[in-house]
Amino acid sequence: MPKFDKHIFICMNQREAGHPRGCCNPTGEGELQRLFKTKLAQRGLKSVRANKSGCLDQCELGPTVVVYPEAVWYGNVKPEDVDEIIESHIVGGHPVARLVISDSILNTTHKK
Amino acid sequence: MPKFDKHIFICMNQREAGHPRGCCNPTGEGELQRLFKTKLAQRGLKSVRANKSGCLDQCELGPTVVVYPEAVWYGNVKPEDVDEIIESHIVGGHPVARLVISDSILNTTHKK
Repeated sequence: MPKFDKHIFICMNQREAGHPRGCCNPTGEGELQRLFKTKLAQRGLKSVRANKSGCLDQCELGPTVVVYPEAVWYGNVKPEDVDEIIESHIVGGHPVARLVISDSILNTTHKK
Repeated sequence: MPKFDKHIFICMNQREAGHPRGCCNPTGEGELQRLFKTKLAQRGLKSVRANKSGCLDQCELGPTVVVYPEAVWYGNVKPEDVDEIIESHIVGGHPVARLVISDSILNTTHKK
């Protein structure tokens, strides 16, 4: 088999409530990754993987997701956004603009 | 700041000793990810991230590492390989051929 057509990394990092950097996985249950995984399976998208990830270092913009190989970053992703990301981006090739973290913001929130 | 120039995902998944699929992180300590992180910092490579990852689904070939955006997969990565991956691939742009999982093997070990 070939490589994954798309490899989706969903941040599972957890911080305590009230942490100044925020948290991508406040319940610690990783619902977002499970939702991507379930919906990809339902769509029969076997060459796409919804992967658990450690901290992606964009915590202030989370919950954070990055899709490779195209390196499209999403922030503030909610469960109700998963269908749109799958249909528009993963299937259709059109990233969901309203959720994309722009290059000008990426990696800026806590680095000098 | 821009996106990461290279985003290295190192599998942290742990399975019990003797599991038929093997395990990328047998000690559960994630030494490999820490080693990448430390050495990248020593090299001053701030636009490269050594990221903890959940199961990358190539367990039988582990410990497994994937480098994006180029989607180069490495298997059987040992701590003593980290310097070579950083110098040859991350800095020099030449993947370490002896560790690369070929497309013909990737995703084949347990899938039909």
